[in-house]
Amino acid sequence: MKIVIINGPNMNMLGVRETGKYGTLTLKELEGIIEDEALSMEIDYEFFQSNSEGDIVTAIQNAAAADGIILNAAAYTHYSIAIRDAISAISAPVIEVHMTNVFAREEFRRHSVIAPVCIGSISGLGVKSYLLALKALAE
Amino acid sequence: MKIVIINGPNMNMLGVRETGKYGTLTLKELEGIIEDEALSMEIDYEFFQSNSEGDIVTAIQNAAAADGIILNAAAYTHYSIAIRDAISAISAPVIEVHMTNVFAREEFRRHSVIAPVCIGSISGLGVKSYLLALKALAE
Amino acid sequence: MKIVIINGPNMNMLGVRETGKYGTLTLKELEGIIEDEALSMEIDYEFFQSNSEGDIVTAIQNAAAADGIILNAAAYTHYSIAIRDAISAISAPVIEVHMTNVFAREEFRRHSVIAPVCIGSISGLGVKSYLLALKALAE
Amino acid sequence: MKIVIINGPNMNMLGVRETGKYGTLTLKELEGIIEDEALSMEIDYEFFQSNSEGDIVTAIQNAAAADGIILNAAAYTHYSIAIRDAISAISAPVIEVHMTNVFAREEFRRHSVIAPVCIGSISGLGVKSYLLALKALAE
Amino acid sequence: MKIVIINGPNMNMLGVRETGKYGTLTLKELEGIIEDEALSMEIDYEFFQSNSEGDIVTAIQNAAAADGIILNAAAYTHYSIAIRDAISAISAPVIEVHMTNVFAREEFRRHSVIAPVCIGSISGLGVKSYLLALKALAE
Amino acid sequence: MKIVIINGPNMNMLGVRETGKYGTLTLKELEGIIEDEALSMEIDYEFFQSNSEGDIVTAIQNAAAADGIILNAAAYTHYSIAIRDAISAISAPVIEVHMTNVFAREEFRRHSVIAPVCIGSISGLGVKSYLLALKALAE
Amino acid sequence: MKIVIINGPNMNMLGVRETGKYGTLTLKELEGIIEDEALSMEIDYEFFQSNSEGDIVTAIQNAAAADGIILNAAAYTHYSIAIRDAISAISAPVIEVHMTNVFAREEFRRHSVIAPVCIGSISGLGVKSYLLALKALAE
Amino acid sequence: MKIVIINGPNMNMLGVRETGKYGTLTLKELEGIIEDEALSMEIDYEFFQSNSEGDIVTAIQNAAAADGIILNAAAYTHYSIAIRDAISAISAPVIEVHMTNVFAREEFRRHSVIAPVCIGSISGLGVKSYLLALKALAE
Amino acid sequence: MKIVIINGPNMNMLGVRETGKYGTLTLKELEGIIEDEALSMEIDYEFFQSNSEGDIVTAIQNAAAADGIILNAAAYTHYSIAIRDAISAISAPVIEVHMTNVFAREEFRRHSVIAPVCIGSISGLGVKSYLLALKALAE
Amino acid sequence: MKIVIINGPNMNMLGVRETGKYGTLTLKELEGIIEDEALSMEIDYEFFQSNSEGDIVTAIQNAAAADGIILNAAAYTHYSIAIRDAISAISAPVIEVHMTNVFAREEFRRHSVIAPVCIGSISGLGVKSYLLALKALAE
Amino acid sequence: MKIVIINGPNMNMLGVRETGKYGTLTLKELEGIIEDEALSMEIDYEFFQSNSEGDIVTAIQNAAAADGIILNAAAYTHYSIAIRDAISAISAPVIEVHMTNVFAREEFRRHSVIAPVCIGSISGLGVKSYLLALKALAE
Amino acid sequence: MKIVIINGPNMNMLGVRETGKYGTLTLKELEGIIEDEALSMEIDYEFFQSNSEGDIVTAIQNAAAADGIILNAAAYTHYSIAIRDAISAISAPVIEVHMTNVFAREEFRRHSVIAPVCIGSISGLGVKSYLLALKALAE
Repeated sequence: MKIVIINGPNMNMLGVRETGKYGTLTLKELEGIIEDEALSMEIDYEFFQSNSEGDIVTAIQNAAAADGIILNAAAYTHYSIAIRDAISAISAPVIEVHMTNVFAREEFRRHSVIAPVCIGSISGLGVKSYLLALKALAE
Repeated sequence: MKIVIINGPNMNMLGVRETGKYGTLTLKELEGIIEDEALSMEIDYEFFQSNSEGDIVTAIQNAAAADGIILNAAAYTHYSIAIRDAISAISAPVIEVHMTNVFAREEFRRHSVIAPVCIGSISGLGVKSYLLALKALAE
Repeated sequence: MKIVIINGPNMNMLGVRETGKYGTLTLKELEGIIEDEALSMEIDYEFFQSNSEGDIVTAIQNAAAADGIILNAAAYTHYSIAIRDAISAISAPVIEVHMTNVFAREEFRRHSVIAPVCIGSISGLGVKSYLLALKALAE
Repeated sequence: MKIVIINGPNMNMLGVRETGKYGTLTLKELEGIIEDEALSMEIDYEFFQSNSEGDIVTAIQNAAAADGIILNAAAYTHYSIAIRDAISAISAPVIEVHMTNVFAREEFRRHSVIAPVCIGSISGLGVKSYLLALKALAE
Repeated sequence: MKIVIINGPNMNMLGVRETGKYGTLTLKELEGIIEDEALSMEIDYEFFQSNSEGDIVTAIQNAAAADGIILNAAAYTHYSIAIRDAISAISAPVIEVHMTNVFAREEFRRHSVIAPVCIGSISGLGVKSYLLALKALAE
Repeated sequence: MKIVIINGPNMNMLGVRETGKYGTLTLKELEGIIEDEALSMEIDYEFFQSNSEGDIVTAIQNAAAADGIILNAAAYTHYSIAIRDAISAISAPVIEVHMTNVFAREEFRRHSVIAPVCIGSISGLGVKSYLLALKALAE
Repeated sequence: MKIVIINGPNMNMLGVRETGKYGTLTLKELEGIIEDEALSMEIDYEFFQSNSEGDIVTAIQNAAAADGIILNAAAYTHYSIAIRDAISAISAPVIEVHMTNVFAREEFRRHSVIAPVCIGSISGLGVKSYLLALKALAE
Repeated sequence: MKIVIINGPNMNMLGVRETGKYGTLTLKELEGIIEDEALSMEIDYEFFQSNSEGDIVTAIQNAAAADGIILNAAAYTHYSIAIRDAISAISAPVIEVHMTNVFAREEFRRHSVIAPVCIGSISGLGVKSYLLALKALAE
Repeated sequence: MKIVIINGPNMNMLGVRETGKYGTLTLKELEGIIEDEALSMEIDYEFFQSNSEGDIVTAIQNAAAADGIILNAAAYTHYSIAIRDAISAISAPVIEVHMTNVFAREEFRRHSVIAPVCIGSISGLGVKSYLLALKALAE
Repeated sequence: MKIVIINGPNMNMLGVRETGKYGTLTLKELEGIIEDEALSMEIDYEFFQSNSEGDIVTAIQNAAAADGIILNAAAYTHYSIAIRDAISAISAPVIEVHMTNVFAREEFRRHSVIAPVCIGSISGLGVKSYLLALKALAE
Repeated sequence: MKIVIINGPNMNMLGVRETGKYGTLTLKELEGIIEDEALSMEIDYEFFQSNSEGDIVTAIQNAAAADGIILNAAAYTHYSIAIRDAISAISAPVIEVHMTNVFAREEFRRHSVIAPVCIGSISGLGVKSYLLALKALAE
Repeated sequence: MKIVIINGPNMNMLGVRETGKYGTLTLKELEGIIEDEALSMEIDYEFFQSNSEGDIVTAIQNAAAADGIILNAAAYTHYSIAIRDAISAISAPVIEVHMTNVFAREEFRRHSVIAPVCIGSISGLGVKSYLLALKALAE
């Protein structure tokens, strides 16, 4: 079983900046925690992060053969129809995750163009958003 | 540790009707699965279901001393400011859950008035939406 | 054959107040006229009125085995997704009725959230709105 | 007593095309059924169908002396202020009818510009929408 | 010099119905008053009235050689892009007139799709709306 | 003279939670202060609080014979057409009150569906909102 | 008989600037032409121009005893509810005039908040807009 | 203690015009009633009325040292951000008052741009709106 | 094989007016060019032009047996639900064409109510828009 | 003569996924068909496909010297102002193409931000959309 | 060379109130700093501040002969079409300035009705907004 | 001190195309002018231009240690939440610049999603927009 974890723009800044909002955990550390969980669940995993919308589209296409994708599209969540179409173009199940509760932030962050084509969505639970998605895909 | 699981209007019809959309699992069976999980996690639990907005408001107020609430407000999700205010009025953390992916349904189901005051939201993962919420609150 | 006639909030005030707009016929008298018609058509009938959205949801669920429901959801017509979902949850045909022409009143009364899940809608014809619905369900 | 039954654009295609949505009953047959009912109620009747907005306006003006008009304005329902004004210009009562439940179709079909000036509206009940309107006007 | 006076749908009902709002003056009488004024100004004139949008489009095209057009498009004022395009298609100046103050009526009557392509607009002044337009075109 | 004071959903949590926003005064204490004022003005009074929309509708209907109603509909202020209709259904004057300045809070709290059918509205003045309403009704 | 002609903000710049759009006629010359017409019609007249919204409100109040007001509110046309209320507060008839066709300009110029309380509106006819309004009030 | 009472545009016409809507009480008489109340409460007072938005801004700035301001901004209520900013610029508490129930009038009167920066709002209670505001500020 | 080419309102003015925007080619000449192409492709053809919405509806119904329809609905493109329904009512494939790029013109011309029920749409390519549509239907 | 054919995001998945909607033709095969047509028309051609918005912008800039561009911007059609600006920045004519009828799909696909700056648009005709565009540019 | 610096409503309160948001610099001091800069650049200058919209309109007209205007219209920025028209009426270049970043404040402050007619706009840079505008006009 | 100047999509076409709107200055020349100014101010500088949204996000992250960023995001200004988040993610101050007055162009160019997170904004002043931003950051 293989799960691909894709993180979108500015997620590489995690733990470095705006630590008041996102905490001090770095992307590396976040991936480490997910890795530990995946290993304990005997799940094969792969990480991908990019600031580029096109590269995320390609990454999703490349993950077409995986058993599931965990996608935190960050800012692109709100306007990338290209990423939405990439999800529609593959049959692997995708779960949308967000560390913060996007519904409690600015109005424009309450709308996800990708949610309708994902199988589910988990938000607001920090690192656990990823771990629960992993658990959901694994079962 | 105690978690209260609150289900909103028409959830008592689960498994009886529209089985094409919601499956054949009944509310009783859903609660049975959650119960098993809670027992295995040594978590105290309580179930509540009502078709009445006011009773759900009261149930949330009554759960103020719990360690967490799992709330599937069903139809009220989309317009009950009263339920939103009940969540704001207590300090117990609330996680919003939905069995189906509400973002893939009618336009009016894409907006949740309660999401901004919950700590997180899980949707589209069927029974697992509840179990993952339980897990998230437990940790 | 059995038909359930459900009246929503403030319908119990019929004939008592705002007689200029709704006439002097009371709810009791309205039900009497429907009763006479039903008897003459040899239809079994049951009346229900409530100011509570949740109780109307439950009444619709309880009428799941009836041959038809005549529903005047009154104010809830315009925002009760819970009542809409209750109608979707049963297979008995529901006809929406209104005594007044709701389209000729305030803007917010022109939109019905329940109409899309009813089989039909009759409005503006006073008591006849109910009698015609009865006739439509009977055939 | 005389009732005029006016059918709008494309109603002449009834029973010929899109039979999956509208059934196989032709306009001729529909008018035959209404005719039978009118004869049995000893009501004088007249049928009119046109694809032209202006001709429907004129037909309504010509029916000013009738005891009632049953109007299925079809597509014009949603934008013909000219037909609305024709209804306002006469004192004969007009009932709006639709065979299908227009509220369950495309968003733009949920709005009727003529409903506010009709005395009532009946939709979703197929041929019965016309027969019930006839009955309502007759009484 | 020649002026064409075009009246839209339901203007043929003028003075017959809704006399409370439009007065008892008939279209014939209205045209008579305009005729008197035109004669006294030694202006050639022609009247046209139709309930049909298409016929009004054609009438405007036919008036292309006139020195001016006075147009009361009535209901079509608010949605007939076809009439708008007919006005754009000719070079004769068109003045839009209304007997009543359309801005003081229903919201949907406040918007004119033809006003932007007319040279001017006169409303609310009853018969005088036409006479002043005549005077404006004459000079 | 008799005044009925009706408080809506979550007002029973007053003084217990969110004390930063609403203060530490409990509903009991609030009612005590109103009671003292009413006694000093020799006004008969009655208190009612409910989290249920339907029960508030009924309470308003039951207060039809009172000389006035002071209504803090709380969350229902923003969407309960049922409560609006209940106010319209009785002839007793109703004054809408709010302890906080609802206009300075979230966008959705700036709209009151009940204000148009009340005789007046007082907001932002804490307990005084109730006392001033009492004074206004008394005179 | 007395008519007051009120011109709003920037009308004092007429003929001086943007002569491509408004022509080279100055406000003084415009008033001169109106004066000639008024004298020939034996109408008493008074001119007022101000860039201040408040002063225009006062000017309208001061003209309450006149037989009519010709008002070109210029930019205030589109947002001055204060001027609207001033018109409502007096019983003298007011005709709204514009030299240019405001409907053919920017979107925000197509909406007049004062039109609904004027008896009529004339636009797009240059100086003639004023002269025709004078004629209309005179009769 | 000193309270400044500021009345906006057209309030000087009170009791003179539109007496059907606003009653026959003049501004002078209104101020007299407020004066009596203020004297009985031993409150120092000052009245100001202007049709000019800028003068009201200045009046509010001048009242910065007062113990409270009662402001009926009339038409400016709905669009004067300048008055809103003036209120924000001072620390004296401001209560917004309206004699009529603005929520029961035209749609555009239901929105107040100044309410969010006032401490409270009282509307619909005629002269009492002012007296209650006085009482509220006094305590 | 037979193709029907239908042109809407004001297309009869082609080449006569607004030649700056539409060129000097007349409708007759346009039809001549299409005729030549059809002949060379051995396709049977028929031309229809009308300013009347109703007549275009009828023309589409009459073309039900054709192998394809090329439709330039002109102004009706933007609001004629009647024409849309006529297209839905037949099974012959319809291609929407426009000579100019409608997306580069006024906002209201960017929306086509008929596009969703056509099989395709070609715009902005002048006469070629028709020829390409012919070619597409022929293959 | 040289034409550049640019395909946007996810077009590389053509024929591989969602074959029910897009058919089984691969991008390679699509390009092959276009190539054959171009060769037969003796047109020089060049293909470009990218998932990256920026790369498509650059590709358009690079094609500035071509005789025409055929652009299927796929998902970027609906929001890429950058691609719109790239088209404006060059003088080579661009034709927008879509294989499916975008107007018959989700609401957000009905709006093209690039259409206004293209010379024309062809949609819904599958592979023929490209071939017709080629033909249009060639002439 | 002469530059006029115009400040709008409440700018006279600068440095006195809301010092947390605007700092402690007074309008006098702000003008002093601009004066120093202007002197060093050998530019003639003139200051104007008013709370009155009409006076600002007049001030802009009076500055028609200047070499440039620096305008901080404050609250009027968001709705004064009168000030917009004054800017259009003169040919002197106007630069809009704001001390704070208006785009980071309330939604209604993000829209400037005057920006489209200014040559440029500078915001968010405190006193420097004025100095940079001075520099831009000087060159 | 170090300032990074970032230019967005199509800025590399500056001076080559659409010279009527943007002038004949090339990006190279623009950078040369900025360079001269920076050298004279003894400021260290770095230029970056890209058509790719993701690369601009990365460039902003890479400039986190700079003393300031001058950003002309061009088309991305209006929809790139990713760039907005990149600005929020760093603490270096960012000034948004535009050569043209974006407020005087198409409606969709009047909205900047990045302005709220920049410290200031300068537009419409051509090359000077950059130089003034440089000056502002330097001080």
